[in-house]
Amino acid sequence: MAFELTREFVAYIEEAAENRDDAFIRESLNELYPADIANLLVGMDDDQAKYVLEVLGRETGAEVISNLDPYMRTDFLATKFTSEEIAGFIGFIESDDAADILNEQPGKIREEVIALLENREKARHIIDLLHYEEDTAGGLMAKELVKCNLNWTVVQCVDEIRRQAQQVEKVNSVYVVDEKGILKGRVSLKKIVLSRASNRVADIYDDEVMSVELHQSAEEVADIMRRYDLDSVPVVNVNGKLMGRITIDDVVDVITELAERERQAMSGLSGNAEEDEESIWLSVKARLPWLLIGMIGGLLAARFVGIFENDLIAVVPALAAFIPLIGGTGGNVGIQSSSVILQSLANRSVFEISTLERLMKVLVIAVFNGVILGLIVFAFNYALGAELRLSLVVSIALISVVLLASFMGTVTPLVLDKFGINPAVASGPFITTANDLLGLTIYFLTAKLLYSL
Amino acid sequence: MAFELTREFVAYIEEAAENRDDAFIRESLNELYPADIANLLVGMDDDQAKYVLEVLGRETGAEVISNLDPYMRTDFLATKFTSEEIAGFIGFIESDDAADILNEQPGKIREEVIALLENREKARHIIDLLHYEEDTAGGLMAKELVKCNLNWTVVQCVDEIRRQAQQVEKVNSVYVVDEKGILKGRVSLKKIVLSRASNRVADIYDDEVMSVELHQSAEEVADIMRRYDLDSVPVVNVNGKLMGRITIDDVVDVITELAERERQAMSGLSGNAEEDEESIWLSVKARLPWLLIGMIGGLLAARFVGIFENDLIAVVPALAAFIPLIGGTGGNVGIQSSSVILQSLANRSVFEISTLERLMKVLVIAVFNGVILGLIVFAFNYALGAELRLSLVVSIALISVVLLASFMGTVTPLVLDKFGINPAVASGPFITTANDLLGLTIYFLTAKLLYSL
Repeated sequence: MAFELTREFVAYIEEAAENRDDAFIRESLNELYPADIANLLVGMDDDQAKYVLEVLGRETGAEVISNLDPYMRTDFLATKFTSEEIAGFIGFIESDDAADILNEQPGKIREEVIALLENREKARHIIDLLHYEEDTAGGLMAKELVKCNLNWTVVQCVDEIRRQAQQVEKVNSVYVVDEKGILKGRVSLKKIVLSRASNRVADIYDDEVMSVELHQSAEEVADIMRRYDLDSVPVVNVNGKLMGRITIDDVVDVITELAERERQAMSGLSGNAEEDEESIWLSVKARLPWLLIGMIGGLLAARFVGIFENDLIAVVPALAAFIPLIGGTGGNVGIQSSSVILQSLANRSVFEISTLERLMKVLVIAVFNGVILGLIVFAFNYALGAELRLSLVVSIALISVVLLASFMGTVTPLVLDKFGINPAVASGPFITTANDLLGLTIYFLTAKLLYSL
Repeated sequence: MAFELTREFVAYIEEAAENRDDAFIRESLNELYPADIANLLVGMDDDQAKYVLEVLGRETGAEVISNLDPYMRTDFLATKFTSEEIAGFIGFIESDDAADILNEQPGKIREEVIALLENREKARHIIDLLHYEEDTAGGLMAKELVKCNLNWTVVQCVDEIRRQAQQVEKVNSVYVVDEKGILKGRVSLKKIVLSRASNRVADIYDDEVMSVELHQSAEEVADIMRRYDLDSVPVVNVNGKLMGRITIDDVVDVITELAERERQAMSGLSGNAEEDEESIWLSVKARLPWLLIGMIGGLLAARFVGIFENDLIAVVPALAAFIPLIGGTGGNVGIQSSSVILQSLANRSVFEISTLERLMKVLVIAVFNGVILGLIVFAFNYALGAELRLSLVVSIALISVVLLASFMGTVTPLVLDKFGINPAVASGPFITTANDLLGLTIYFLTAKLLYSL
């Protein structure tokens, strides 16, 4: 069962840390997973959190540090630990997480820790990984993996697993390479368990292994692993040489983060995830840009409506009352349409219906929705004694707005995507503002037309 | 490298199927993964797709069927295959996927196929799985797994893996149970490979295994697997008896689907994912409900603005021009605030700051953003020669709207969540409409006040 952290438990452990009650700390945390202990530390005073890590020892401590929220970890490590202490933990952390942790630290600490690492192979691995962009296969991969040569026997393979067992936590497959280190295939551990010791790797390996290249984006990697149900994937360089492996847990984080970023884009938040702990200024900065764009749109709308100020609104002030209805409907329809397109862009296939067919379908749906809304609004206005001409203007404008906003909501993400801009922003304030303006234009042009008849 | 499907390739395979060129089909598809062949079939005529499956044989065919989009699969199986043929494929599919596939079929076909299954153990597994709700651990799990008894030796364990090898595709751990089938722990395959054959399971197994219960929601399972970096998790009943296992690939699908549903809720789409192939009527039905709610909001706004028609708008028609600015800003600020809250609800921890602290922070941010926007708009209006009083009304209303929309955007998701309603809907049309109304109220009250001075 998953562990539920309570404030009381945190208080007990804090007290034990204060009293240097090592036995109590060890006993209480013995049954917990590193991820749970990491959660616990977030709630504790930094000095006492450090004491708990010391009590747990370097190996468990390293796992806890890997699970800490980067937001807490960066300062916690930099302020409470010496570079020697950090290096002690890093020795027990796989290279991909180690590189991520060191990447958070200032250059000086990073260099000191790498210089202090006892395991020089790991130091080389980390230096190597620091070169890759965070959002690429190279940035996601770990260097630790078990590989064996095509010419080996199963027993040599098992020896290699034994040699690497300390370094590589999860082994589900052994990668098969040739003399030059070129990836040739894989053997599952299941197959190794079931093979005779004298079998040759060449006879039992699977030569159809899916791999990704160093430069491929994290998103592509996530896509491939999801599509082919992989729990790990080897990473190769342009020559096909085996460079590392990516495990599914890292990709699950990528998928979660991508969904989060998309939601932020839709909500008009820029920059990274806003956290409770973040400063006011960062929050203002995340929110302001889109509000400014919305404001510019609103001011444009004001200039535009201003044109009709004297000859329409002053004469028929009731026209003003329906501005929110028209604008709001345009915004809602636009967001719905762009959301549907976003979804089909995400599940892109060569067999998707053509843009023209899609537009036709969108417009048919829009006619239905528009007419239904238009009729209801007309009935409502007429029943409440609004002038016939005004009721007509509002309903005709409403139907037109639904049609045009559907069209815009469909086309905008497609165009953004063509130009390589993340189309998720099209569901955000930008399209809402555009549809607002569009709706008002149609509304006042209709009014102008019908009132000048 | 991932395979890129082209229309040309589909045409070649279609032609080969038409000409019954089995050799060409086999050779062309030999290098492809089942997921790629499934994609290929989607683009083909159903009869020819069936022919391709026949050429590939039952085992590969079964994998392809598992990878087919349920939307195509349901009709394809029901119309093109006999129950005998379906049973032939199901024999090669793991119980969780088999249950999902049969669940899509009408009751008659489902029962026939189960009755026709040669492997009666699998038939029992499937019948068992059909009882569980789709969105629970029971609905996600497969019955196929390798388990061994606490008292066995490693060699007995390997024999059991060999016995189950045909049924269980991916084996990364062996689950350890006692005589009553109660889950006691697990042994990784890595450990089995590295142990002496005479070792007892009791001496090498890991007794701290994370498990989930049958009734736990798919979301909880996804959360646990993500938090603890698991690539599979055993499922137990209330008595702790081992019932099945869930692998990470199924959970990756759950995570993707949850993100998709949330985005739909934000966009004001109801019901399931809209697909290109879906009927016009389903699309109308998915979109209309939220548009109607938006419409009611718009009509309410119209009634409300109507109150000020004669004494304010008729006198100062320029007031109408700023309705979109005020409403739009309220909507944008509301969505941003609710999105931030949604995020912290998703990453809930016991250490989150209190609601009061959070509200204070939100309001401070709102003051900043509101004042910045208000000043810019004031400068703009004043520069363009708007009346001083009007410029004041607009800017004061704008600041108030930003404050109130921030407050509403923060409180609404928290309240919805308290009442067990998915708070993601708070980012959708509902809150936009509410903020629209709120903004207009503030705007006209401010105007009323300043113009009556």
